[in-house]
Amino acid sequence: MNDPASWPASAAGKELKQERALRTREGILHAAARLFADKGYPAVTILDVAQQTNITKGAVYFHYANKEALAAAVTHEFYRRLPAIAQSVDELGLSTLASVGELLTRTALALRDDTVMQAGARLQIERALIGADLPVPFQDYTSLVSTWLEKAVELGELRHTTPPSALARVIVAGFFGAQHISWVLHDRKDIAERTLELVEAVLPSCHDALQTCPSAREHWETPSAGTNVG
Amino acid sequence: MNDPASWPASAAGKELKQERALRTREGILHAAARLFADKGYPAVTILDVAQQTNITKGAVYFHYANKEALAAAVTHEFYRRLPAIAQSVDELGLSTLASVGELLTRTALALRDDTVMQAGARLQIERALIGADLPVPFQDYTSLVSTWLEKAVELGELRHTTPPSALARVIVAGFFGAQHISWVLHDRKDIAERTLELVEAVLPSCHDALQTCPSAREHWETPSAGTNVG
Repeated sequence: MNDPASWPASAAGKELKQERALRTREGILHAAARLFADKGYPAVTILDVAQQTNITKGAVYFHYANKEALAAAVTHEFYRRLPAIAQSVDELGLSTLASVGELLTRTALALRDDTVMQAGARLQIERALIGADLPVPFQDYTSLVSTWLEKAVELGELRHTTPPSALARVIVAGFFGAQHISWVLHDRKDIAERTLELVEAVLPSCHDALQTCPSAREHWETPSAGTNVG
Repeated sequence: MNDPASWPASAAGKELKQERALRTREGILHAAARLFADKGYPAVTILDVAQQTNITKGAVYFHYANKEALAAAVTHEFYRRLPAIAQSVDELGLSTLASVGELLTRTALALRDDTVMQAGARLQIERALIGADLPVPFQDYTSLVSTWLEKAVELGELRHTTPPSALARVIVAGFFGAQHISWVLHDRKDIAERTLELVEAVLPSCHDALQTCPSAREHWETPSAGTNVG
């Protein structure tokens, strides 16, 4: 420690160590997410997670106290994704009605492509089997859709006999159901199609607005993605 | 056996024994359904089922080879309930559009009140955790709703920009989502309300038809059932 040359090297070493620990922690989280998504919470063991991350069980326990803590961390990541998707849609400057369509389509594509989203959805369904305090599901997302629909009514973009708060509940229930059925029956391959079908059925006045949604247009323009697997 | 008086008594005894065995078998099935509905498949043990039925584990195994067989039997019962509900609706002679509303409302009330229905819904959600071949979910129900909606279009009872087959998928997704969210957030107390809300939002032209649905009317006329817990 008295050798001045050793000091910066040691600080750099410490930083490197912290970085490595952070990467390991992230690696564990993503391995756990993959396993929860594929096998379901009850079937996953800490040994599975360790093997997937190429570390020891002890190293997993160093970062996460137990399987419940891992499930809570993955669920926490899932609930950080949803407002981030809403934020990314908000920044597009679409009409309010189109924003609702884009929000649902982006959430659907994220469920199809993002491991943390898949794990979050499955852990939500298995929440009664998990001995950890998980966030109350559905409420924030429903409240966001409701706010956007209210604004669409105010702006004259949406007319419907059902009030916005009830429409939001129906849309979120339909979306949750559609993604679940798509998962069970078609491994989520038709999730974007089912989501757009839902939006058009519940909000017929959204048809023109959907033409301005980047994710919807991309989906319609990609022939392979448009395959009807139903 | 040579005493003639013993013969009829023995036959009666055999019948009594068979009846008792059948009752035990039914008792096991209903205890298992209650446990699957309350605790979820992974958390239930054969010992739980035995204790709930006041018999030994061996007696449970005499009727059902293992937990998988019990889950399969309960699921089988669930899938017998659904066509029976459809049949009971068909016999009412409602308009086709009203029949769709009545079918969904009766299914919702059955999910709220009938243990086998609750167990079936939960086992369906936990199907990936069950090592038994369960029936493919959603398809028969969707196909039934689709057939009824097609007929409603043919009869001029329903006009919608979305074709009946897609509307049926949206309605079944919405119904599955609504009953799940109602279970997670409100212990199914608001399930009838959420179902009627869904039908009215997706099929606005169903509004008048719903006034003729016995279950919907009963729900609206019972103030306690109409409490909005959302």
